[in-house]
Amino acid sequence: MASFLVNGLPSRSVDACDRGLMYGDGVFRTLAVRAGRALNGARHFRLLAHDCSRLGLPCPAQSLLVEEVRRAAPGDAVVKVIVTRGSSGRGYGYGEYIEPTRIVAAWPAPVPAPEAARDGVRVRRCSLALAIQPRLAGVKSLNRLESVLARAEWRDPAVREGLLADQEGRLVEGTMSNVFFVSRGALVTPELSRCGVSGSQRERVLDLARADGISCVVRDAAFGELGEATEVFLTNSLIGIWPVASMDELRWSPGPVARRLQRLIEADDASAP
Amino acid sequence: MASFLVNGLPSRSVDACDRGLMYGDGVFRTLAVRAGRALNGARHFRLLAHDCSRLGLPCPAQSLLVEEVRRAAPGDAVVKVIVTRGSSGRGYGYGEYIEPTRIVAAWPAPVPAPEAARDGVRVRRCSLALAIQPRLAGVKSLNRLESVLARAEWRDPAVREGLLADQEGRLVEGTMSNVFFVSRGALVTPELSRCGVSGSQRERVLDLARADGISCVVRDAAFGELGEATEVFLTNSLIGIWPVASMDELRWSPGPVARRLQRLIEADDASAP
Repeated sequence: MASFLVNGLPSRSVDACDRGLMYGDGVFRTLAVRAGRALNGARHFRLLAHDCSRLGLPCPAQSLLVEEVRRAAPGDAVVKVIVTRGSSGRGYGYGEYIEPTRIVAAWPAPVPAPEAARDGVRVRRCSLALAIQPRLAGVKSLNRLESVLARAEWRDPAVREGLLADQEGRLVEGTMSNVFFVSRGALVTPELSRCGVSGSQRERVLDLARADGISCVVRDAAFGELGEATEVFLTNSLIGIWPVASMDELRWSPGPVARRLQRLIEADDASAP
Repeated sequence: MASFLVNGLPSRSVDACDRGLMYGDGVFRTLAVRAGRALNGARHFRLLAHDCSRLGLPCPAQSLLVEEVRRAAPGDAVVKVIVTRGSSGRGYGYGEYIEPTRIVAAWPAPVPAPEAARDGVRVRRCSLALAIQPRLAGVKSLNRLESVLARAEWRDPAVREGLLADQEGRLVEGTMSNVFFVSRGALVTPELSRCGVSGSQRERVLDLARADGISCVVRDAAFGELGEATEVFLTNSLIGIWPVASMDELRWSPGPVARRLQRLIEADDASAP
């Protein structure tokens, strides 16, 4: 069963006038919690605060959020932390003293699927192309209709993710993950200054790779560059790293960079305070 | 006081797992209700159903929505009808049998401001540029962060609306209204095939103008064309038609096309069943 805290109180309901519902006026992050501890928590809360500031939204104190995550998820869980601008009357404008809404929702941890991380997964290219909007690029906002429509493009459960290009044909991300590839010995991930969501696991993978001496490049990449990549993998907070085994007619084997980073993430999770 | 029906029951709260909140996965329309009757109701419900089908979302029966609007707003009111995809677990995917959520929210009718319709209003050009996303263009979805951010660009209450261009410099709409202008004797409103929201009042103004023999053109228009327009006006369901008196350094007087259409809207509201 799921467990919810709304503004710190056990509740599964939200005001119908909340701007999160009315306009998607808010942000969120999805965390893996192990034994009551949010993995990669520092990056999650830093990015949440950063996203709030991008929307001009006061972010609740990290200590409060950490405590609420602990209350909602004492064991192993998946926790979603949502911060909306709060309730207001009709209209896009809002007053100076509006109070943000905090929602901390905990679900049971997913059943482990080690074969995806070991053998790699099948993905597809989505036909939806992401809109270019620098004002929201990188932000994990509650405006996620593009992800919803892209995810609705397939039903085959053997296809684990869909990859998205932007309106100008650049590779951006998956519907629920960030994407990395290895090209000419360097680890590449798309820059997210026009669209896309900057995931906490993406940030950690870049940090761990750099600290490990792996050459990392964050840049624009044409979708077609995947065809020349020697490794492709996906990241998010729940899956860790999934190598991509195939996309449509393309094939890859899980490679040394993905394997190395999987081990580094495990070690980072085990050593964090 | 506001009055709310959620799935037909009096309630002001919505499930925290509703996809309207989680992802903005839903649509809405804002209606003016006079003496218990939704003005321009047929177009509102037709556009709502159209928007639902654009998102692959089953639209509740119009008869049900009409009855709920009547229950929520027996007199004069502003009513927002929201349809979301409903509640689901985590993740962008959803099952085949998910039930949409209906929210009908009624607020007291706004205090009339006849001077805006009579004398025209002051507007500004917003710096935010709308993203191009044909998959969502025209749809009044719950992904409204662009409107929120654009509306947050000014606080001066004397400025009544902000006009928006798309990322390529075309005129699109206001933060809460559609825009029309008169150029070389024709009434022009931007095409909304790349971005923007197709308002019910916009559709009615086009229908009434055409029936009245006014030459109407729906086309791409550079933002700069406003500089040569002889009239500019805004439409939405609550304001009817507001002539634009000024935008930044530009000035206009309320003109004959806006005046004629204001009268036609009034007559249409008075004569509708």
